[in-house]
Amino acid sequence: MRQSKLFTKTVKQAPKDEKSVNAQFLIRAGFVDKLSAGVYVFLPTGLRVLEKIEKIICEEIQAIGGQRILMPALVPKKNWEQTNRWKIFEELYKVKGKSGQEYGLGATHEEVIVPLVQKYVSSYKDLPCYVYQIQDKFRDELRAKSGILRSKEFVMKDLYSFHTSEKDLDIYYEKAKKAYFKIFKRCGIGLQTHLTLASGGSFSKYSHEFQTITSAGEDTIYICENCGLAINKEIKQEHSKCPECGKTKFRQEKAIEAGNIFKLRTKYTEPFNFFFTAQDGSKKLVEMGCYGIGLPRLMGAVVEIHHDDKGIIWPKEIAPYQAHLIQIGNNLKIKKQTEKVYQDLEKQGIEILYDDREDKSPGEKFADADLMGIPYRIVVSEKTLEKNCVEVKQRNKKQIRLIKCISKLQIF
Amino acid sequence: MRQSKLFTKTVKQAPKDEKSVNAQFLIRAGFVDKLSAGVYVFLPTGLRVLEKIEKIICEEIQAIGGQRILMPALVPKKNWEQTNRWKIFEELYKVKGKSGQEYGLGATHEEVIVPLVQKYVSSYKDLPCYVYQIQDKFRDELRAKSGILRSKEFVMKDLYSFHTSEKDLDIYYEKAKKAYFKIFKRCGIGLQTHLTLASGGSFSKYSHEFQTITSAGEDTIYICENCGLAINKEIKQEHSKCPECGKTKFRQEKAIEAGNIFKLRTKYTEPFNFFFTAQDGSKKLVEMGCYGIGLPRLMGAVVEIHHDDKGIIWPKEIAPYQAHLIQIGNNLKIKKQTEKVYQDLEKQGIEILYDDREDKSPGEKFADADLMGIPYRIVVSEKTLEKNCVEVKQRNKKQIRLIKCISKLQIF
Repeated sequence: MRQSKLFTKTVKQAPKDEKSVNAQFLIRAGFVDKLSAGVYVFLPTGLRVLEKIEKIICEEIQAIGGQRILMPALVPKKNWEQTNRWKIFEELYKVKGKSGQEYGLGATHEEVIVPLVQKYVSSYKDLPCYVYQIQDKFRDELRAKSGILRSKEFVMKDLYSFHTSEKDLDIYYEKAKKAYFKIFKRCGIGLQTHLTLASGGSFSKYSHEFQTITSAGEDTIYICENCGLAINKEIKQEHSKCPECGKTKFRQEKAIEAGNIFKLRTKYTEPFNFFFTAQDGSKKLVEMGCYGIGLPRLMGAVVEIHHDDKGIIWPKEIAPYQAHLIQIGNNLKIKKQTEKVYQDLEKQGIEILYDDREDKSPGEKFADADLMGIPYRIVVSEKTLEKNCVEVKQRNKKQIRLIKCISKLQIF
Repeated sequence: MRQSKLFTKTVKQAPKDEKSVNAQFLIRAGFVDKLSAGVYVFLPTGLRVLEKIEKIICEEIQAIGGQRILMPALVPKKNWEQTNRWKIFEELYKVKGKSGQEYGLGATHEEVIVPLVQKYVSSYKDLPCYVYQIQDKFRDELRAKSGILRSKEFVMKDLYSFHTSEKDLDIYYEKAKKAYFKIFKRCGIGLQTHLTLASGGSFSKYSHEFQTITSAGEDTIYICENCGLAINKEIKQEHSKCPECGKTKFRQEKAIEAGNIFKLRTKYTEPFNFFFTAQDGSKKLVEMGCYGIGLPRLMGAVVEIHHDDKGIIWPKEIAPYQAHLIQIGNNLKIKKQTEKVYQDLEKQGIEILYDDREDKSPGEKFADADLMGIPYRIVVSEKTLEKNCVEVKQRNKKQIRLIKCISKLQIF
C-alpha cells in the first residue's frame, strides 16, 4: 500500500479527553477515530490489525471444533425475559420498533444461541457441539474511559459449548484454556497474561479471566509466586491459598482482562428447557460453557503492553504490515530504487506500507514510522543507494543493518 | 467438513409465516434460522455463502481503489440532526443510553463517513478517495416479509467516494457500475441483472439500481428492448423514451433490487461544511457518491433465481462447498473408499461437505443434497466401488457420469 494513497493521516493530537495510552497512540497513528464516548471507527490500518486478530482467533477456535455462525444484534425482549435478564442486565441497550416490538441489543448471546442449538440438538448423539461467532456487541458502559479497552460497541468472539455432562464440559473447558493461551501468545501478550480465578458475575459462581499485566490495568490481581495462577482482587478474600498449588505467596499487579471463560452449567439451558435424551433414555439438561474475547480490547491491551514514548511496537503476527518502506528524497534514481524494492518485497508476499509521500521530511517520516509501529523499517536514501543497499531497523531494536540489494532482497 | 459433525440439520418445514422461496429453502436447508420477523441467524453453511459473497465484493471494490474501514452502528443523534435525518428517516431505530446520549442505529453511514473523511481531507491533493465497509445495518422495516431480501438487520457493503468535481464523480460512478456488474456476474446473476434508472429517494434526484429479474420481485421495471437499460416503475412516467438510446419499446418485468448507487453530489458534504482547497486556492464543496449492496439480499436474490422444486442450485463461486460427497452404505469397504476420496479432494484444495451420516437412508441423503444445492454431488456406493469409480452429478444437470478413482481424482 502506498502511504500517499491512504486517506488517513497521522495526527498531531488525540482528543484531550482520551487519557489512555492505547487511544492516544491509536488515534494519533490513524488506526482508529473516536466518534463519541466509547464509540470508535476502525480506519484502514487499524482494521488490518483487527482482521489479523480475528484470523488468529478463528484458527484457534476452529482447531478446537468451533463452528462459525452469525447471530443478530436485535434480540427480542421475550428471549431476555426467559432468562430474567431483561430487567437485571444493566448494560443492555433497549430498542423499540415502530410496530411495537422490543429488542435488547445483544450484549452477549446466550439468549439466542440456547434456543437456536436446541432446535437441532435433541439426543446425546448430537452432543457435544461448539458454536462461535465474531460479531458486534453493544453495552451501555458508564465507565467508557479506557479507549478501545472498554467501549459501548465492539466486535467480540463468543464461543458456546454444549455437553452431555459436567465432566465433558470440564474437559472442553481445559481445551479452551489452552486455545486462549495460544491466541494471546500469537498476539504477542502470552508472557504477560495470567489465568485468573474471578467471580462469575451474572453467569456463574466463578469464572476464569485471562489477565494481562500492565500499569494501565483496571483490575488488580494476585499472582501465585509458585505456579503463576492469579486471583482477582474481587474474590481474593475467599482464597488465602492458591487453588492450584496450595501455596500462599502472592504478588499484586495491575492488569487488563483480555478474555474470559465461564462454566455456565445449566444456568441458561434450564430457562429454555433445553433437555437432551441420554443414552439410557432419560431426559437431562444440557451442560454449557461460554468463552469470550473482545477483539478491540485485545488490540488495546497489546498497545498498552507494547509501546515506547514514540509510539506503538506491534508484535509481528498482528502488525498491519510487516515492513514500512521509507523513501528519503524524491529524485528519480531514489524513486526507481524504492519502487524496485517495493515490487520485490510484494512479490515475496511481504505486506508493505510504502511511504512514498513527497511532501514529508525524513524526520516526519521516521516519526510516523515509530508512531505506527510496523515491525521492520526499510529505508532507501542517497546514502544507501551509493552502497546499493537498504537500511533495515526493527521497531523494537536500536541496531541498524545495511542489506545488499540483490535480486531477491533477504530481510526477514 | 463431515456432515455428521455439523450442529445444524435440514428441517422438514420452514415457519408457516415465511412465504418467500428464499426463506423457505434457506431455513429448510439449514443455512439460516429465523429469530423473529425480519431478523435472521446465519448458520455455518449459510455464513460460508455470505463470506464468499463478501470476498467477491471486497475484491471488486478494492480493484476500484476502495479502502476498507469499520464504522459503528451507534451513530450519535447530533450527526443525524446535522443532515436533518433524525426526524425524517422513518426506518431509523433510536436508542437512548443510561447517561442520556441518544443514537440512531446506522441505517446508512453518510452521517459518519462525511465528518470522518473531512478530518483527513482538506486539499485537492487528498482527493479523490474511496472508502468502504462491510458492516451491520439496522432498519425498522414494516414490510419484512420477503425472507432475507428485506430484513431489519443485515450486513451491507457501503462504499463512499469523494471528488473535487462532478466530472470526476461521473467517471468513478461509471467505474463503480462496471464493478457492480462484475460482482453480480461472479455471484451468478449477471444475466438476469439490469441497470435501472430509479428515484434517488432521500439521497438524490435519480439513482441507479441493479434489478434482478424474478417473479418474486417486489419492484416492477421496464426494460428497453433495444439496449437493456431499465426504468423503475416509480419514475417510468417521467421517461417515455429510454434515457440511454432514445428508443421507446419496453417490456415489463418483476425484479429484485440487488444493489444501488447514488450521485449524492454535495447533499451530505454541505451540511457538514466539507470544503476542500482547490488548485486555484478557492474553497469548494466536496462532491460525493455512495454505492450499496446488502449481502443477505444478494444471497436471497440468488436463491430466488437459482432453484428448482427440490431446492437451491448455488452458482459455483458462492456455493458453501464445491462438492457434496455422499457415502451410500456403512460397511467398512465403503467407508474406507469414501474417506479416501474425501482426503484426495481435500488435498486438491476442493471444499467438500462429506455426508458421512450413518442414520440416513440414500433417499434422505439425495434429498438433502438437492435441497442444499452444492454444485457437484459425488456418490460412493457398492455399485461404484465394484467399478472402482465415483458417480458424479452436477446439481443443475440431469446427466450422471462415472469417474475412475485414480490417485488424483479428476472431477472438475
